[in-house]
Amino acid sequence: MTPAVFDLPRWSATELARVEQALSDWVAAGGVVDAEHPAPAALREGMRYAVLDGGKRLRPLLVLAAREAVAAGEPAAATVGLNDAALRAACAVELIHAYSLVHDDMPCMDNDILRRGKPTVHVQFGEAQALLAGDALQALAFELLTPADSEAPASVQATLCRLLAQAAGYQGMAGGQAIDLASIGLALTEDELRCMHRLKTGALLQGSVMMGAVCTARVLPQATHTALQTYGAALGLAFQVVDDILDVTADSATLGKTAGKDAAQDKPTYVSLLGLDRSLAYAQELLAQALHALDASDLPNTQALRALADMVVNRSS
Amino acid sequence: MTPAVFDLPRWSATELARVEQALSDWVAAGGVVDAEHPAPAALREGMRYAVLDGGKRLRPLLVLAAREAVAAGEPAAATVGLNDAALRAACAVELIHAYSLVHDDMPCMDNDILRRGKPTVHVQFGEAQALLAGDALQALAFELLTPADSEAPASVQATLCRLLAQAAGYQGMAGGQAIDLASIGLALTEDELRCMHRLKTGALLQGSVMMGAVCTARVLPQATHTALQTYGAALGLAFQVVDDILDVTADSATLGKTAGKDAAQDKPTYVSLLGLDRSLAYAQELLAQALHALDASDLPNTQALRALADMVVNRSS
Repeated sequence: MTPAVFDLPRWSATELARVEQALSDWVAAGGVVDAEHPAPAALREGMRYAVLDGGKRLRPLLVLAAREAVAAGEPAAATVGLNDAALRAACAVELIHAYSLVHDDMPCMDNDILRRGKPTVHVQFGEAQALLAGDALQALAFELLTPADSEAPASVQATLCRLLAQAAGYQGMAGGQAIDLASIGLALTEDELRCMHRLKTGALLQGSVMMGAVCTARVLPQATHTALQTYGAALGLAFQVVDDILDVTADSATLGKTAGKDAAQDKPTYVSLLGLDRSLAYAQELLAQALHALDASDLPNTQALRALADMVVNRSS
Repeated sequence: MTPAVFDLPRWSATELARVEQALSDWVAAGGVVDAEHPAPAALREGMRYAVLDGGKRLRPLLVLAAREAVAAGEPAAATVGLNDAALRAACAVELIHAYSLVHDDMPCMDNDILRRGKPTVHVQFGEAQALLAGDALQALAFELLTPADSEAPASVQATLCRLLAQAAGYQGMAGGQAIDLASIGLALTEDELRCMHRLKTGALLQGSVMMGAVCTARVLPQATHTALQTYGAALGLAFQVVDDILDVTADSATLGKTAGKDAAQDKPTYVSLLGLDRSLAYAQELLAQALHALDASDLPNTQALRALADMVVNRSS
């Protein structure tokens, strides 16, 4: 049987409309200290600037696609609370991603002035506000996951917090950034480079997939769990390999960020290690791994996950 | 009836022994990327340096004291999971406090080189590692609150995450820092100064109290809930008033941090606004408010909370 062609642009547009609206509603849109005092405007502006109107929203889409893959056919009545939890999880992973970009762009890290085609947060608002905006976005991610009046089970809320904290922390994204910092100018082996990227980019991408699965409140068979993890790991690594390729093949206008900066900063990349041709081949190999993990699983509805993996590997920006 | 005198140093020593051990065990003591790769050592060192061997641990003690106040007389068998949750909450609030100090000391913020009698994290490890260590400590706080194998109810885990995220975020500690930044060199009114400190210091102190109460898994009567909030708010403000007093009356060696820096940076403080005598009187008034809230409540065992409030106001460093 040939499956119907999945319309990723259409699916993404529908899902992203919900995500963008939710981000606009939830990211420091208002807030008060008390009846007489609003929450500080400068901080709220910095947070919203960092999150809204930009980015491919890959992580939110992975959350929602993974949930669809696991939850296919679930009766709508049972899922009101879980729909909300999934949208919150989608926003939360994007807030963690956005905060990491704000901090990563600061002068003491990558010292970058352009992001998503706009001046970076510290250029626009100053370093101190950028530092605080990043800090507040991380806290807000966990606040979004734990609304007081949720109809989602508390166990789902708690599990989402655990997965996100692990993906963001010292054994995840922050750990990867630390390895990245320490490796500037060093000749890493492919094994060391893979290890760095598993944390720096892979942990949050894989975490997004697993968080989406949690928003079904189903206990997954071990094999299904492993299939999603394998998909997430292969996708996460593929994302970085392609990032390294685009850093040398695309221009800044296309990327919306400074092209060629890895080479300029003498950072080890897949292209510097494997060369361009082997990097391109490796990206395709990782895509095949990701798709194979889904094929070999009993997941009922993997079209969106498959299309996202294809998009990650075959994108041009 | 005259209550027996409460031995705060003895109670604190017992509780802090557990907290210090837990922090040493839980703050990036190990960790792996995978079987072949340990978690990055430089980041783990920075995180541990920021947290271990220093600080009064006021926030952890507030968590544990508030839990005692609410839970007095609860059968031990019912509380194994909640004991663990309380210890985790105590550590989590300290991690948020520690990360805020790391970031606050950075050159783009207060640019301070001395903290708890030691070089600050960015002096010791560099700015980029300090930024990442702070980020990773915030994530770890939420990871500590949500262990996979907990015997505590998931609703307790989720509520703890919510309270901590709110206390740390843009309507809490990070918001207060942003107001603080924006107010350097300005002549704030007492109302504006109080508003800033309610967020900057008060939110996490009050949050610590409320998180301790959550670790009983009891539904509190509204009046009891309000009493704890009033206690936490008064204590939080008193803490800051006393901090401002000590900034001008104590020396750096006693404080373990740079004395006189508020005046040097032209920051508004209670002393600059009210003068020293009225600040001292205000601190005592806030202590009386905190104690009165406990007296007027039906809480069975408020000795530790009372003693901590007294310690906060009458401390010399």
